[in-house]
Amino acid sequence: MDLHIFGVPALPQVVRGADVGALIADVVRRGARGVEPGDVFVVAQKIVSKAEGAVVRLDEVVPSAIATRWGSETGKDPRVVEVILRESRRIVRMDRGILISETRHGFVCANAGVDASNVAPGFVTVLPDDPDASADRLRGALSAAFGCPVAVIVSDTFGRAWREGAVNVALGVSGLTPLLDYRGTADSHGRPLTSTVIALADELAAAAEIVTRKSAGTPVAIVRGAAEWAGDGHGRMLVRDASRDLFR
Amino acid sequence: MDLHIFGVPALPQVVRGADVGALIADVVRRGARGVEPGDVFVVAQKIVSKAEGAVVRLDEVVPSAIATRWGSETGKDPRVVEVILRESRRIVRMDRGILISETRHGFVCANAGVDASNVAPGFVTVLPDDPDASADRLRGALSAAFGCPVAVIVSDTFGRAWREGAVNVALGVSGLTPLLDYRGTADSHGRPLTSTVIALADELAAAAEIVTRKSAGTPVAIVRGAAEWAGDGHGRMLVRDASRDLFR
Repeated sequence: MDLHIFGVPALPQVVRGADVGALIADVVRRGARGVEPGDVFVVAQKIVSKAEGAVVRLDEVVPSAIATRWGSETGKDPRVVEVILRESRRIVRMDRGILISETRHGFVCANAGVDASNVAPGFVTVLPDDPDASADRLRGALSAAFGCPVAVIVSDTFGRAWREGAVNVALGVSGLTPLLDYRGTADSHGRPLTSTVIALADELAAAAEIVTRKSAGTPVAIVRGAAEWAGDGHGRMLVRDASRDLFR
Repeated sequence: MDLHIFGVPALPQVVRGADVGALIADVVRRGARGVEPGDVFVVAQKIVSKAEGAVVRLDEVVPSAIATRWGSETGKDPRVVEVILRESRRIVRMDRGILISETRHGFVCANAGVDASNVAPGFVTVLPDDPDASADRLRGALSAAFGCPVAVIVSDTFGRAWREGAVNVALGVSGLTPLLDYRGTADSHGRPLTSTVIALADELAAAAEIVTRKSAGTPVAIVRGAAEWAGDGHGRMLVRDASRDLFR
């Protein structure tokens, strides 16, 4: 009943069109850990976005009036603000220099997931078009490469309401049950547990972040010991529908 | 650069006045894993609350008018609602059967952390009076018992805005840096990273939850491999001050 979490060796720079599954399989093969059935590969969104071309060249962006105003108020590049607005389907908060929006996927996060870190100057990454599809493709590639079923989480680091600091969460999920539903099961006194649904995929993503944080340049970690939760389900199940959400 | 996470063997029932540190030390000593310097003990709030007497007998609670109304609207025991209101210093949302409030500690969570699961019928637990002090005491006891410095997180499972499912978070922290601040460090292109503060203690709590979830009745897990983050700091650093929060 243990979990073991470790980073895979550093990948080469990921460029547009790169086969991320093949890159990961290659470095894992050169490592000593091997792959076991049910291993969960947690892959940073950044390399998925780069490979998929989810990258915007700022030279080609013309900021709108509101992007220019928000940029000048906050000291941010108005072209980056424009990309954020394009990636957003609703603005949740725009206050005190912070722009929190809902992406077209339904994720609620700062700057719609647009990020300039670890990208060449003059470019920003945006979130993958369909992180679950990205996870599906990676799972297919990695399961084939190692001849055993594995699961994949495409993760990103999001801030939270009410709490300081960001944590890694699961954007895309494949081959894993993202939510564990304990409603209706009994507690130690035989009474039904109420409203206990655990976001397993987010907890796995958070655990992996600790390891990738420790190993700079390692955008992929493997969680071993979670094979019992292999299954169907996607990251979109972790997105609370706006109609059920009290905070947007 | 690995993390290894495992549950400690099941504890006996924790009653008021129990020495939780001694109980944990006892079962860990009987296990085969030992303790290493820098091990992080993640301890469920529930057993801390029970030991500290942070338990309310519902027979002694007289519900107020609003507790009675909310209880009858939502089908909840009005005495439990009354305890929730007593534990709250502000109500953040009270809508669609969901009551989210800010506790006197500043935590924002459903039902102010009041919980009837795994408690004897007729009782509910409330959050520990000062989870950081609880973590400090446990750290002192466990470091002394094993003759090496360890860290302690007192954790609970909280829901989130915008995302389905709950995750474990750190209420009380001792012996560990709860937030890792990467602002001002450079990315792979030599540009400064902005606003990258990671809630390490929450990620560790989340990782531990996966293991305790697997081993029913195990309210304590050990995270091994995080010794580099030994340090000062408390769980209260993870609570965003209301003046900086856009969602309450």
